[in-house]
Order: sequence, then C-alpha cells, then structure tokens
Amino acid sequence: DLHGVLATASARGEKLPVVLRRLLRRAVRVFATDAGTFFMVDPESGDLSFAVVEGPARGKLEGRTLPAGEGIAGWVARHGRAQLVRDARRDPRWKSTLAREVGFATRDILAVPIRAGRGQVLGVLELLNKRTHPGFDEKDLRQLQALTASLGAMVENLRLWQQARRSNARLQLLNQVGQLINSTLDAAEVRRRTIEAAKQLVDAEAGSLILLGPRRERLYFEVALGKRAERLKSISLKPGEGLAGWVVSHGRSVVVNDVRADPRWSRRVDRRSGATTRNLVCVPVRNRGRTVGAIQALNKRQGHFDSDDRRALELLAGQVAVAMENAGLYDRLQQTFLESCQALASAIELRDAYTGGHSRRVTRYSLQVGRLLGMDEQQLENLRITAILHDIGKLGVDDRVLRKPGKLDAEEFAQMMRHPQLGESMLAAVEQLAAIRPGIRAHHERVDGRGYPDGLRGQRIPLAARIIAVADTYDAMTSDRPYRRGLPARVAINEIRRCAGSQFDGGVVRAFLDAYRAGEVTGRRERLPPLRRGGGRAPAGGSLGAGGRSRGRHRR
Amino acid sequence: DLHGVLATASARGEKLPVVLRRLLRRAVRVFATDAGTFFMVDPESGDLSFAVVEGPARGKLEGRTLPAGEGIAGWVARHGRAQLVRDARRDPRWKSTLAREVGFATRDILAVPIRAGRGQVLGVLELLNKRTHPGFDEKDLRQLQALTASLGAMVENLRLWQQARRSNARLQLLNQVGQLINSTLDAAEVRRRTIEAAKQLVDAEAGSLILLGPRRERLYFEVALGKRAERLKSISLKPGEGLAGWVVSHGRSVVVNDVRADPRWSRRVDRRSGATTRNLVCVPVRNRGRTVGAIQALNKRQGHFDSDDRRALELLAGQVAVAMENAGLYDRLQQTFLESCQALASAIELRDAYTGGHSRRVTRYSLQVGRLLGMDEQQLENLRITAILHDIGKLGVDDRVLRKPGKLDAEEFAQMMRHPQLGESMLAAVEQLAAIRPGIRAHHERVDGRGYPDGLRGQRIPLAARIIAVADTYDAMTSDRPYRRGLPARVAINEIRRCAGSQFDGGVVRAFLDAYRAGEVTGRRERLPPLRRGGGRAPAGGSLGAGGRSRGRHRR
Repeated sequence: DLHGVLATASARGEKLPVVLRRLLRRAVRVFATDAGTFFMVDPESGDLSFAVVEGPARGKLEGRTLPAGEGIAGWVARHGRAQLVRDARRDPRWKSTLAREVGFATRDILAVPIRAGRGQVLGVLELLNKRTHPGFDEKDLRQLQALTASLGAMVENLRLWQQARRSNARLQLLNQVGQLINSTLDAAEVRRRTIEAAKQLVDAEAGSLILLGPRRERLYFEVALGKRAERLKSISLKPGEGLAGWVVSHGRSVVVNDVRADPRWSRRVDRRSGATTRNLVCVPVRNRGRTVGAIQALNKRQGHFDSDDRRALELLAGQVAVAMENAGLYDRLQQTFLESCQALASAIELRDAYTGGHSRRVTRYSLQVGRLLGMDEQQLENLRITAILHDIGKLGVDDRVLRKPGKLDAEEFAQMMRHPQLGESMLAAVEQLAAIRPGIRAHHERVDGRGYPDGLRGQRIPLAARIIAVADTYDAMTSDRPYRRGLPARVAINEIRRCAGSQFDGGVVRAFLDAYRAGEVTGRRERLPPLRRGGGRAPAGGSLGAGGRSRGRHRR
Repeated sequence: DLHGVLATASARGEKLPVVLRRLLRRAVRVFATDAGTFFMVDPESGDLSFAVVEGPARGKLEGRTLPAGEGIAGWVARHGRAQLVRDARRDPRWKSTLAREVGFATRDILAVPIRAGRGQVLGVLELLNKRTHPGFDEKDLRQLQALTASLGAMVENLRLWQQARRSNARLQLLNQVGQLINSTLDAAEVRRRTIEAAKQLVDAEAGSLILLGPRRERLYFEVALGKRAERLKSISLKPGEGLAGWVVSHGRSVVVNDVRADPRWSRRVDRRSGATTRNLVCVPVRNRGRTVGAIQALNKRQGHFDSDDRRALELLAGQVAVAMENAGLYDRLQQTFLESCQALASAIELRDAYTGGHSRRVTRYSLQVGRLLGMDEQQLENLRITAILHDIGKLGVDDRVLRKPGKLDAEEFAQMMRHPQLGESMLAAVEQLAAIRPGIRAHHERVDGRGYPDGLRGQRIPLAARIIAVADTYDAMTSDRPYRRGLPARVAINEIRRCAGSQFDGGVVRAFLDAYRAGEVTGRRERLPPLRRGGGRAPAGGSLGAGGRSRGRHRR
C-alpha cells in the first residue's frame, strides 16, 4: 500500500526523494514492470524533471528535464488525465529521440497525474513495459489511479511537513547564532560571527557585512569571509552602487539567482576580488528604523537561494543590529573611559615640568612592548590603563617639587618618591581597577631590588610595571624640559640597553629594542646590535647610568 | 475519500480536532449511520477519550473518558483488531450503563483501530446503527478497514506537522523576545523583559526571575510580574529551598503540574505573596557553565505545562544569560568609568584647601536636585559626570593660589577664574563628553549675568551648571577649611535662599530647599519656610551675599 509507505516515511522524517524512490520501487514491483519514472512538475515553467527513475536508464535520465507538454508524461501533466498507451512507438506524443538516446525500448506505458489537495498536478507517475503478457490493461490503470488517488495530497503534505521541519531547524540555528553573535561586546567579533552565521544559515560559499560609513557617503565591505576574504575587505561602494548598494538605498531585500542578468549588479566587486558571484541574497540591516548596512550571502552551495533564505537572513539582520548596537555602546563607553583617563592624565602632567604628552607616549611604547611580549587583549587593556595613570600620584606632590629645575633635596625627593604609592591609593575606591594598582605602585621598582617603594626584585615586579619603567625612562630622557633639551634617541636607547638586568628587565629591554628597530618608537626604522642575553649586568650606579637616570625621571 | 479530507485539511493548516470531525462526519454519511465516535487513546494510561462524537449523544459524550480496555472501543484499542458487533446489547464487552445514561439505543457497531506508522493504536473509529437493513456486514467492515488503513499514519503525520508548526511559531516568538531582551544594556530592563517573555512564551499567568546572590547564599525573586508582582519582589529563599531552589541547586529544569503533590514545593512563597500556584515550569539560567539563577513560569492559562514549554524556557534562558552578561559588563564598565572619574576628582581636590569629599557631595546634592526637577536618566547621567568633574580645571591653578588661606590678589583671582574654561578644554579630547563640557565651563555663571567666564544670564546657563552652582556654593560654605570652620547648614541655606534670582536660579533653589527639607542634604529632615516665587531678588552684592560667596567659593 503506497499510502503506508508515505505515511511511515514522513513519520520517520525521511526526505522527499527517498520516499518517492521507495514508492516508485514498490509500484514497479507490484505492477511487474521494466521501469518507472516519477516526474515532478515545476510549478512555474510546467517543465517535468525526471525526479526518480527506476530501470536500466536510471543513470542517463535522472535529473534531466522534459519541456512542458512534451512526451506522454508532459501530456498527462498538462491535461491532468491518466493514460494507458499500449504501444508507445505508435503514439504521436511519444519522444522517440529520448528513448533512442538512452537505448530503452519502450512498449506500453501507464501514466497517472499526481494531484495536490487543491487539484493542481504536482507530478506524473509513469510505469513502462509490463512484463506479463499482454501488457497494461484498463484494470491496471484503475488500480494505479486508486492507489495514487490521494498520493499528491500526501506528497504535498509531506513536503509541507518537511518544510516546517527545515524552517524549525533553521530557526533553531538562528537562535544559536543569534545568541553567539550577541554573546560578545567586541564589535569586530560581532561582525566576524555575523558573516559566519550568514554563510551557515543559508549554506553559502561566502558572506559579507556591508556597512554605511559614518557620514553615509560610502559602503564598506566590513568583513567578508570565504576564500577571498582579505581582498573583499578593502572594497567600498558608492551609495546605491551594486546590489548591496540598492539594498541599502531602498531598505529592501533581494534574492538574485543570476546576478549577470540583473541590471543593478556591479561587476566591480568581483573584478576587484577575483571572485565569481553566481547568485546572492542580500538583506538590509536596520537600527532604530534606519538602514545602516546589509548582510549578503554569495553562491548557494547547492541549488538556488529562495525566499526562505531571505527570511532567515532578515531574522539574522535583526539580531545583528542589536548586537552591533550593544557592541557600539560598549565600545563608546570604553573609549569615553580611556579618553577621560587620558585627558585627566594629560591635564595632570601639565603641572609637571614635562613638555606634555608624556603619559600618552609611555602608553604607546608600553603597548608596543606588551604586544611583542605576547600579552593578550585583557593584559594589554590593563597595561594601557596602568600606563595612562602611572603618574597620577603626582597630584599629591607639591608644585615646587614637581617644577623644581635643579636637583631635589632629601625632603623633596622623599615627597617625589611617594607618588607611586599615592597613585595606587587614589584608585583604591575603584573596584574594577584592582588589577592595575600593583603596576602603578611598582613602576619605579628596579629588577636589582634597588627601586622604590618596596624594593621588589625581578619577576616579583608586575610585568606592566617593568614595561612602564622602560617606556617611562626612555620618554623622560628624550623629552625636552624647560631647562634642558632631551637626549637624542640613540643615546637614550644605549642607556636603556646598559641598564638591562640592573634597572630594567632584560626581556622587556629586548622587546623595547625590537620596537625601536621596527620604527615603532621613533617613527623610523633603526639599526641596532642585539642585546646579549643576561647583558647589561653592570651596576646601575655607574656614571652614565646614574646620569641617565638623573636626567630621566626624578632628579635628586 | 478520507485520505483526501486529511491531506487537504493538513495542507490548509487545520487543527487536528477539526480534521477528525470532518473525517467522522464523512464516515457517518458514507456508511449511513446514526452516530459515530472518534476515540483517542492516551499513550500512557491507555484510557480512551471521546475526542469527537457525531449523533444525538454528542453533547453528553464529547470530552468524556472510557477507562482502558472497557467497552467495545476499549477492547478494539487493546487488541488492535477491528470488530463488527451485530447486537451490542448481547455483547459482554458492551457498556450498557453509559448507553442508558446518555439515552442512546445502540444496535450494531463497527469499530476499527487507527494505527500509527509504527503500528501502535492511536485511536478507534466507531460507527453505530447502520440505518439500512440489515445493518453492518463484513463488507462494511472491510471497506472501513480499507479506508482507514493508513489513517493513523496520516493522523500522526498531521500531528507531527502541526507540532512542527507550533514549534515554529514558538521559535519565531523566541527570536523576537530574545532580540527584545538583548536590545537593552540596562540590567533591570533585561530582567523585566525576561519575565514578560517567559509569560508570553508558555502562556502563563505569572513569571519570575530568581537570581543567586553574589555570595550564592540566598535566592532572590528579582522580578515577578503578574498580579502580585510587588509582593513577590521582596521574597528570598535559601539555596535549595522550594522548586526554584531545587532547580538552581541541581541545574536541572522541572515541569510540575500539581505543585502541592511535589515534596520539593515550598508554600512559603505563596503564603508570603497571597498567590496560589497550581503548576509551574522552572529552568536554570547558566552563565559560563555556572547556574546563576532560574526562570519560572506559573499557572498555565489553559491546560498543563509540557516538555515543549520547558524547552522554550530553556532556550529563553540561554538568551537571558547572554543579555544579563552584557548588561553586567556594561554596568561594571560604567561604574569603573564613574568611580575612576570620582577617584581622580577626589585626588585633585586634595591639592585644594578643601577638607575633601567636595566633588562627591556636590554630585550627591546635584543629583537630588536634578531628580526633583524631573530630569531623565540620560540628563541625570550627564549631570553626574559634570558634577564629579566640575573642578578638574583646578589642575591648572598653582598650589600657592589654591592653598592661599587669605584673600586672593587680582593676578591670583584671575588664575582661579580660569578653572572652568580649563576644565572644559581638558575634556575636549573626549568626544563622548561633549555634552558635559558646557556645564563645566558655566558652573560659575550667575543668573543675573554677573558670573564668569561668559557672563551668561538665566536660562542661557546650562541647567546642570545652575544646579552645580547651588550645590557647590552650599558645600563650600558648610565645609571646614584648615583656617576656618564651615558655616552651620541653616546659615548656608538662608544664604542660598537669599541669592535665588540673582546668583542662583530660583527653580533650582526651590528644588534644593525641598531636598534640604526632606533630609537629603543634611541627613535629617528640616523645617524651612517656602521660597517666594521670584523671591531673593536682592542684589547679590549685599553684605551677607558677598560674605557668603567669599567664604564659600573663591576668595578675592
């Protein structure tokens, strides 16, 4: 019983082609025929595809198309009437060319239309060459008609159910990717995950997130993973240019399955990237009612993009807009925090005898060294704040000490030496900055234990403090003061080298020298011999060392 | 054809009971019977429910239950075999009591089992009293069997499809609510939206979000909307107490459809809230692998909670964890920002002759006034930052001026007067603080236009600056200095009153006096006559005014 096959299969969640093949095999066996075909009718063109073929020509026929109305099956599909053909070769509708091509000698044919619940023909079931004499008769025709009477409705039902299952699976995936996209407040990570999600959701080869520039004057391919990700990353479009531009300008989605036939398509992106776009789906990303960009998926791995793909990306776009908004808010708040700290630090150093920009430069040098030492994002973030705020304790040092052009006397130097501790205690009320306080306290420690306030040695000094000590000293030596010019970079760098292992951490100095050579310190590449491992062990009390130090940070 | 009915119905998306009724009506008509019943078999108990009844007893029977194995239908369901009963009254299986009760005279019966694809009996189709003589025969039985052969599989198929559709609708809703929950970084708003979403998602009368306290020592009903929201809000549980406690302790979901029968259930919450919980579904909320709380939905509006409800809430919990994490991160960063600004402002004022805590108090008074004046959250946030940072420009004022105990000479006063502008320009690099800079610049303006630096009048002075001017003056007057004690609050407040309309904005002073009366300024409630509208018009150069001002802010 064919209905049982269908019902069982759908209960098992089998795919339609699998079910249709089982049905066809059953029919071929029950009616004892040489071959059979299940044609599916394209609802738009009316063309018939050889969806499932049983028999010797299966390999040659399956997947091929019979134009609308052609052959016996085409006639059955068009007229919606079953046919019994006792000798195909004498039937004027018979496509003998196809039969010859595949080398199958057709004798008699039974073909019945498969109708959906609403009556329209979904497909045709055709059986060929009944093995027993004298071939198909009217009784066979009635039997096949009875058996397939409600098949179409069931096939449609199964198709609907499977559609619902696919939609379900996709919504579940969307939930997952939405959660993943939203579970970071890092804007770049949001964009990366968006593209990955878009590709996965609609099974595409590549994806891009296209964002309007801040003044809405250009469209930027912000991320574009896939094979040619890097190239696409740099491409920008005029508003309205290309399909993505059209989507952003009109705030409407598009599904284009032959981009070359679409007048809105711009070849420029493909030319620039060397990619070949066949088809795409592109949906607008809106934030607070305003289109801010688009998500695009390119080249469906199998078949064509359809309206389900479009809807899935539209739902994704809603999630992405939220995640981008959150990441943007977090990012702006973080910027505000860092810039405010920097602004206050800059204001604070105006009191000092420095020429300004000190904490900004120390921060820059420190981050370069931190990166070369392989610090992770969180460590770099803490290093940044520590470097920005390292001297805030100077708020507790009197003007007359801070600004004294000559050497400091003992009392003045004692006051100056308190600034690392003062800085640490000023931030005591900020719970979230607990991690940076040790670095501020220790930025005047020396690896030989002769620094202050705690006389820590080597690795017991927080790495951030060891880094800042180098950056701070280098900047202090090379900066102009009202009463003297700064040292040349080369002299300062040699002084830093010399004090590796005594005042400074050797590994930090090596990284600083690497940054110097790479031009990250002075803005131009420099040649410099490498630092010996364990080098610079000379006592820090030596002439240049003391001189450098006195010229550099705090004059005693 | 019964299959056609089913297939068409499912294609139309009709609900199962509607479809079954149409099927039964068709069968009753085709076989010309007095009545018919479609029994559904409960998969767990084996009981049969009169799911759909056609005939005179419909009203009395529909919805009733036949215990497992009872009656002809019970026998058919249990044995899975069709039965033809020519005279029901002589059949020992016949439930005559039920027939008498409903007043239906049964003669002959045709009953066939409806099997699912996997063979198990889903239901029984029973037809009663064939109208034509001599009643049902074997041919009718075979015909009904043939017609219903794959009905069970189709019913199951339809049920699966409808399940998929329901699941689809729910996933779509989940997407929407997930997006809504994630589209705020305000933790309280996240919690509120979570509860709303939980209620909506599983169609419950009430919901709560239960969160573990920071030391994991108590469970707090953080939000609990529904009729008794306010009462529930204050209830806390011990870890492991009640069903919610069990869920949090075990990290596992529960569906309880009769809470009174569950030993884990704690009546305490109901007693405290005056609510009556019938049934609930409760799922854990996890963040980074750790259970941090639970989402609970109470009292399903129709029927019972099921595993679909549980799964929906579990998916919601994933979204909520992400949203709570994001809101928490944002909140902590905002705290870090504000506390850092406050720490630096406090450090800066250490240089000053103040006794400390000045900017913190000014911030507190200003926010109280801002709230009384009806400022929204964003305005209050800006006011807070403006108040914290209002004096940072003093970084540009020399120690000797700042700390001078006596009156300032002209040059010194000129330097002091530059601090509002200096403060404004120090923050120029912080793009996001653009909104607060005018308030910092203007906090020494006077509504009569005699302030500095710009001599702005009345409403042209930003409201934040008008508020801070009052708070700043009051705090300066009442604070001790190294060289003098602060004025009593009462004296200072009268001075503020007197300068309303000249130095200060009348509306701001009124709000400040309200805050003072309410005890928000001094910590104790104060009696104070109201300020006349337009009062305090006396020129600010008067004796006490000048005295107050000179004692208060900057001494000339």
